[in-house]
Amino acid sequence: MEQVPCCDPQLIESVVEGLCRERSRDPLVHRHHHDVPLPSVETLSEIMEMLRSVLFPGYFGPSELRVETMRYYTGATLDRVERLLSEQVRRGFCYECTLARRKEGCEGCDARARNITDKFLQELPRVRDLLATDAMAAYEGDPAALSPGETVFCYPSMTALANHRIAHELFRLGVPLIPRILSEQAHSKTGIDLHPGATVGERFFMDHGTGIVIGETCIIGNNVRLYQGVTLGAKSFPLDESGNPIKGIPRHPVVEDDAIIYAGATILGRVTIGKGAVVGGNVWLTRDVAPGSRILQGRLVETAFQHGAGI
Amino acid sequence: MEQVPCCDPQLIESVVEGLCRERSRDPLVHRHHHDVPLPSVETLSEIMEMLRSVLFPGYFGPSELRVETMRYYTGATLDRVERLLSEQVRRGFCYECTLARRKEGCEGCDARARNITDKFLQELPRVRDLLATDAMAAYEGDPAALSPGETVFCYPSMTALANHRIAHELFRLGVPLIPRILSEQAHSKTGIDLHPGATVGERFFMDHGTGIVIGETCIIGNNVRLYQGVTLGAKSFPLDESGNPIKGIPRHPVVEDDAIIYAGATILGRVTIGKGAVVGGNVWLTRDVAPGSRILQGRLVETAFQHGAGI
Amino acid sequence: MEQVPCCDPQLIESVVEGLCRERSRDPLVHRHHHDVPLPSVETLSEIMEMLRSVLFPGYFGPSELRVETMRYYTGATLDRVERLLSEQVRRGFCYECTLARRKEGCEGCDARARNITDKFLQELPRVRDLLATDAMAAYEGDPAALSPGETVFCYPSMTALANHRIAHELFRLGVPLIPRILSEQAHSKTGIDLHPGATVGERFFMDHGTGIVIGETCIIGNNVRLYQGVTLGAKSFPLDESGNPIKGIPRHPVVEDDAIIYAGATILGRVTIGKGAVVGGNVWLTRDVAPGSRILQGRLVETAFQHGAGI
Amino acid sequence: MEQVPCCDPQLIESVVEGLCRERSRDPLVHRHHHDVPLPSVETLSEIMEMLRSVLFPGYFGPSELRVETMRYYTGATLDRVERLLSEQVRRGFCYECTLARRKEGCEGCDARARNITDKFLQELPRVRDLLATDAMAAYEGDPAALSPGETVFCYPSMTALANHRIAHELFRLGVPLIPRILSEQAHSKTGIDLHPGATVGERFFMDHGTGIVIGETCIIGNNVRLYQGVTLGAKSFPLDESGNPIKGIPRHPVVEDDAIIYAGATILGRVTIGKGAVVGGNVWLTRDVAPGSRILQGRLVETAFQHGAGI
Amino acid sequence: MEQVPCCDPQLIESVVEGLCRERSRDPLVHRHHHDVPLPSVETLSEIMEMLRSVLFPGYFGPSELRVETMRYYTGATLDRVERLLSEQVRRGFCYECTLARRKEGCEGCDARARNITDKFLQELPRVRDLLATDAMAAYEGDPAALSPGETVFCYPSMTALANHRIAHELFRLGVPLIPRILSEQAHSKTGIDLHPGATVGERFFMDHGTGIVIGETCIIGNNVRLYQGVTLGAKSFPLDESGNPIKGIPRHPVVEDDAIIYAGATILGRVTIGKGAVVGGNVWLTRDVAPGSRILQGRLVETAFQHGAGI
Amino acid sequence: MEQVPCCDPQLIESVVEGLCRERSRDPLVHRHHHDVPLPSVETLSEIMEMLRSVLFPGYFGPSELRVETMRYYTGATLDRVERLLSEQVRRGFCYECTLARRKEGCEGCDARARNITDKFLQELPRVRDLLATDAMAAYEGDPAALSPGETVFCYPSMTALANHRIAHELFRLGVPLIPRILSEQAHSKTGIDLHPGATVGERFFMDHGTGIVIGETCIIGNNVRLYQGVTLGAKSFPLDESGNPIKGIPRHPVVEDDAIIYAGATILGRVTIGKGAVVGGNVWLTRDVAPGSRILQGRLVETAFQHGAGI
Repeated sequence: MEQVPCCDPQLIESVVEGLCRERSRDPLVHRHHHDVPLPSVETLSEIMEMLRSVLFPGYFGPSELRVETMRYYTGATLDRVERLLSEQVRRGFCYECTLARRKEGCEGCDARARNITDKFLQELPRVRDLLATDAMAAYEGDPAALSPGETVFCYPSMTALANHRIAHELFRLGVPLIPRILSEQAHSKTGIDLHPGATVGERFFMDHGTGIVIGETCIIGNNVRLYQGVTLGAKSFPLDESGNPIKGIPRHPVVEDDAIIYAGATILGRVTIGKGAVVGGNVWLTRDVAPGSRILQGRLVETAFQHGAGI
Repeated sequence: MEQVPCCDPQLIESVVEGLCRERSRDPLVHRHHHDVPLPSVETLSEIMEMLRSVLFPGYFGPSELRVETMRYYTGATLDRVERLLSEQVRRGFCYECTLARRKEGCEGCDARARNITDKFLQELPRVRDLLATDAMAAYEGDPAALSPGETVFCYPSMTALANHRIAHELFRLGVPLIPRILSEQAHSKTGIDLHPGATVGERFFMDHGTGIVIGETCIIGNNVRLYQGVTLGAKSFPLDESGNPIKGIPRHPVVEDDAIIYAGATILGRVTIGKGAVVGGNVWLTRDVAPGSRILQGRLVETAFQHGAGI
Repeated sequence: MEQVPCCDPQLIESVVEGLCRERSRDPLVHRHHHDVPLPSVETLSEIMEMLRSVLFPGYFGPSELRVETMRYYTGATLDRVERLLSEQVRRGFCYECTLARRKEGCEGCDARARNITDKFLQELPRVRDLLATDAMAAYEGDPAALSPGETVFCYPSMTALANHRIAHELFRLGVPLIPRILSEQAHSKTGIDLHPGATVGERFFMDHGTGIVIGETCIIGNNVRLYQGVTLGAKSFPLDESGNPIKGIPRHPVVEDDAIIYAGATILGRVTIGKGAVVGGNVWLTRDVAPGSRILQGRLVETAFQHGAGI
Repeated sequence: MEQVPCCDPQLIESVVEGLCRERSRDPLVHRHHHDVPLPSVETLSEIMEMLRSVLFPGYFGPSELRVETMRYYTGATLDRVERLLSEQVRRGFCYECTLARRKEGCEGCDARARNITDKFLQELPRVRDLLATDAMAAYEGDPAALSPGETVFCYPSMTALANHRIAHELFRLGVPLIPRILSEQAHSKTGIDLHPGATVGERFFMDHGTGIVIGETCIIGNNVRLYQGVTLGAKSFPLDESGNPIKGIPRHPVVEDDAIIYAGATILGRVTIGKGAVVGGNVWLTRDVAPGSRILQGRLVETAFQHGAGI
Repeated sequence: MEQVPCCDPQLIESVVEGLCRERSRDPLVHRHHHDVPLPSVETLSEIMEMLRSVLFPGYFGPSELRVETMRYYTGATLDRVERLLSEQVRRGFCYECTLARRKEGCEGCDARARNITDKFLQELPRVRDLLATDAMAAYEGDPAALSPGETVFCYPSMTALANHRIAHELFRLGVPLIPRILSEQAHSKTGIDLHPGATVGERFFMDHGTGIVIGETCIIGNNVRLYQGVTLGAKSFPLDESGNPIKGIPRHPVVEDDAIIYAGATILGRVTIGKGAVVGGNVWLTRDVAPGSRILQGRLVETAFQHGAGI
Repeated sequence: MEQVPCCDPQLIESVVEGLCRERSRDPLVHRHHHDVPLPSVETLSEIMEMLRSVLFPGYFGPSELRVETMRYYTGATLDRVERLLSEQVRRGFCYECTLARRKEGCEGCDARARNITDKFLQELPRVRDLLATDAMAAYEGDPAALSPGETVFCYPSMTALANHRIAHELFRLGVPLIPRILSEQAHSKTGIDLHPGATVGERFFMDHGTGIVIGETCIIGNNVRLYQGVTLGAKSFPLDESGNPIKGIPRHPVVEDDAIIYAGATILGRVTIGKGAVVGGNVWLTRDVAPGSRILQGRLVETAFQHGAGI
């Protein structure tokens, strides 16, 4: 059994050498400033599940939750979230210090993190009111849904919006890195890539969801519905003098109230889809659409064909 | 270290207050009727893995499975599935009771759940015969596949179909919520959103899969092939007198035997894609396609351009 | 409580019978040749995480990594990878033996597996140099990215490319099954389906990523950018005399240096997208595109419409 | 590799036969009455840890506990304990029904379990006051202890007493099986076998603890100290007419206030160790000891000896 | 935060040096012969739990076990035990080869391991019959026990005997190392150190158990009862010419049927405790005891004393 | 099912009240000074396992360890130990600050912890040399042991000594709490209670081990052997003026080289067991024993008796 001699230890030595040599290290190794590690993806995921359980009690978290004792669970969970999240936010700020190669220590990062975490917690009741409108929109928008609760429990749209509305609050408070991580977690699970910077109104519903992309500077009104595969993206972006993209310029679409965008439509640039407009599926759109109007893909070509001939 | 004082406990108290106050609670809190919790997403996931191991022994479950002792594993696993699943089905029925705000207790839910679970188990050999045809179709449809087994082991199409064919049996037996949960689990893993209500024939293959959406009332014939990003969806849906969508009306496409639909096509409404028809990629289609015919996207526009000018 | 009698044990017996009967077994049961199990999906996933931690130290793996002691971690991890991976590669070869129904034992599989694993390890420093160019490309290609490190840590493109560049090395060394499993793991997580056979140049970036499909015989040059939902697929494939698809023929696009392909474009067949060409979103393309040219979707149809009328 | 054929499947069949044959089954197989399983050792262990965290907050449970938010944790934990424990108590009662071979269902078991669980919860503040006296006694009794908290955190005596005082409450409320399981868990961890029936006063300290055995009908006063290896056991027990031991008769020692019993003493039968008495180590004692008196082992024999000659 | 510089990397280098230098390595490093690792303590623990679940179904293993489907569980579990155990036994044999510094590979170890594992499995029904007698003895020997099942479920004596009777079968079959590991696992959990070589008759009961030591060459008859802290050990052992202890000579007590040995008795050497004899607690005994006789500790010394004066 | 109403929420409220009221809180609640939690028992257990794996490579830790790559594992493990342990030591110091109710923050605790951790790491090679002598002593002292390695792998004596020798180094360096926790972990696992303060020479062996207690100020020479149940304890201890035990006074036995103490002996007070002395089992000893002498228990009483009459 397994008498074949082990791999040459010198091989491992030379690969170690190759991977640890100075010049190779630079772009892919994170050297923490002041010895503070990066935010932990696992902890953020745990925090998100705890928030989900206080936003949607009975659907997530301990299944046996009772209204009579909900206060205890909510308080205990928020206390823990406060602890864990402020540590993660601190790590995010320290990462920024590292990027900025600040010489001095980041003494203020801890207090700043605690302060911002508290501000974030205060927004939770409002976040929840928004999510309640989303659940109603999902229920009303999908004939297959039997109750708003079912959409909370099962629909990718609600999963993505819970992550987004929380990530967006942190984004607004200036927290680095973490909003993006929360968005990517929803992206990986639902296929919906909703940038934490995007502004989203009430009653938002993304049916099926997979492949939806919504960019950083999008503004989405109330009562908007999107289908799978819709892109609200940027076209091109201006460069600064040193040839780097200029950050933070509005470059994604504005979608006004009551608009509907069907599956696979690609809308690029700072264009406006007017109130109540409908965009048909699979279109490629780089200009404004007037309120109340309707956009469809052009003509199709239909022919008889030989089976097996392919296309 | 960490001498900064902890967050104000009154802050947590006020957030608890905000999250637990009466009027906020309603849409997002699940109050179980008769104290029965919702179905457990984790347990359903475990049940699905157990079913996968009896449907595809050697590929999933204990890797050392031997044909000689397969009976023992199969029996032990089914016994456990029967227990766990009937409890989950019971929870599903109790959820329905909660929605219906039935005053009386749901005494019958338990017996009904056991009865339906038994009926479901009897369908497993048939489900497996169907999946065997799917594995052959995947193998024959993808030049990169070296054996049908490889498609069972690695292909998103087979993952999604195993979940679907099981969810569909439960859907047909009238089980609430659970079929949807099983479908969403496959959706999250594969990007394929196959509604448990859809009727799917033999030898079905979805190449690559990501972004495929197949609606509740779809009917798919034998030997159909779909590529990534295909939507078989609803157009619009009639409302009842109170403005709610009327549930259960046929509103998704019928795809007849031997049809092929290429990547990114969006087909909406109760239209029929005829036997052997081919639908090219990226089309937006809301009408019937004759048997044996071929549909392609219209003309493209090609121009020379300055690099960096964007589109 | 639960007094309802348990399910009929004869039911389970008959379902066991149905699932274990001879003729049902064949396509869906894996009978290992020489008693060697299939590669373990969990172990491969663990190996991949270990490789990620030596390719991107500080971002993945033990968060407290220090440059001073990085050698120790790298060496210990590679030693473990060498052990685990050579066992998995051996299982892959034995699976091939099983498929080939080789009468004799697969005595050579073990030594072959160790030999190939060593060759693979030697490529790791080169793989990492490639990934460093990808991180720069992602940073430069996305105005929202604040540092190359952020793309390593959070971007689906980097996740998918780390898996791909490793899977591709194993593919080139003739390892069966395992490259595909690694690709599917990235596919499930990111929605990017990048076949391990595809050849990918330096500085590759897939923005957002979900729904991208890149086929086995694709050749992608340097500095190429793709957006979500892009397909680089095959059209149809020639069959051999017995009607089986001929394997290994070049059948997917070639994309030359500096090309950009926008969201949702579907490009099929062995066509060439020339150097610096731009393909607009949502097009369906089955022919060559000249270097430096630009392809867009044809005309759209816009009409005013009655709200509620649907499309 | 591993070409040696697998074990004979008939072997396994015959061993299965041997283990499942009717007559072998009886004493060692538990057939649940009414399909209710036995109490779960894992769940009871989890309940015990939850109770420990509310009895000794800061020492056990979430380490970051703050006095300001302790209420939330305590309430959330008790709510969960109430749920889990009443289910376990129900199982205990059903086990009793099984033993008694009651024909009718155990309809009352559930309500009885909930009722008793509530009574148990009400005793927790009193239980904690008792444990506070034990912590002081341990601190004062061991020169090596630096604070009462250290004894809470590290001393086997406190571990065993927390389990005992809880098990004893359940024992007094007539709960079957569960008190014994809790005692055995402490026994396994500390080597202290303290029967849940034993009555224990305030300020009890068992130094080192390993090997201490305290029987069901023991009565221990206040401020008693025991050392490792002390047995407070029964001598012999009267049999009833059918030759079975008569249950419940007082048969273990009474130890009055302020007594000290040194390491390895064995005291058997319903004898009384009077107030303030001291029993030296390694004695074998089956009679009363007067208050304030002192008992020591008899004479030793000392000789010079040849090394290597053994004893 | 944590700005204090990390520990000197040279420190770690010098400690690594100290721990890896040649001469230090010898006694404490295991260099596997032929690259086979030592038996896995975790796997053996898992095997033991699986065996417990087939020996005592309903008490251990899946709690919902039903008599009707017990065959399936038993078969599936034994199949898995056969696999796992034969691998562990092989490792045990390879360890012996390593100790013996055999030059040639241990080609026969695998076949030998499989053969012995099969022999072991055949003994399981007999082992279970023995354990049934032990459960009856425990029930009859302890007035606090309400049923034989309770002793199976909770009593250290049964835990230790299940491990012992299995370890003893493996010991008799010549398996190295593994019997000892199984015994130590019970020792750690129960405080009972029962050497796998000891021969134990029917109906054996060890009340409380902690501190019991039973040596390798002990022979224990039927219906023997021991209390906590009893030692059945060796006195001294003859050395061979090179001064090493001669292994395998009978050097521990023989305890005949129906004997009872009370708490803390120490019995050393190849002496015989005759049929029905009773040995009182805390005695030190190095000679035979006649059948039916009774041994007690000598006189005690009792004095009045001043409280606080100590002993 | 489960229609019985839930427990009264007011019940939980009143129990919460009882457990959180001010006066009850004091002795049993740990209020961390400066918000630093207590050392983590789980982390210390993990650190101990890591140390075991570098002290006994091949026996513990990754089983596939090879001498050629041992450096990498050792370095990576020590680096991790250094991080984790210095954090735990810091917590220990902060606990001391809390006890001392120091007003000012414990700014120096972190630097002090890192400094002491480094000193501790430097002692590891010496600790390992000592453990090598212990393994030889165990092998030579037990005729059942087949190799020194077997004692490393399986013997409670070696488990307890590895913990002790590490805990003792930390004790000598003035680390609070942690040495005690490490000792208790070995105590719980082996039944050996070896105080971290005890001084232990080379070649120490504790056969069987359960019930051995060795006090804080014991001094044990070279080549000493102890059997199970031996106590080396304190008799009584002087009190200071306020009635508290005076800490740190030598109060436990001195055992000189080559002494042997048999099972169950209890030796109390600062007495000296001379070089080469032998103490027989079950004695109670509170005075010196001359070098080379032999102590045995006094006379036994033997009588014939009626079976069933008890003792």
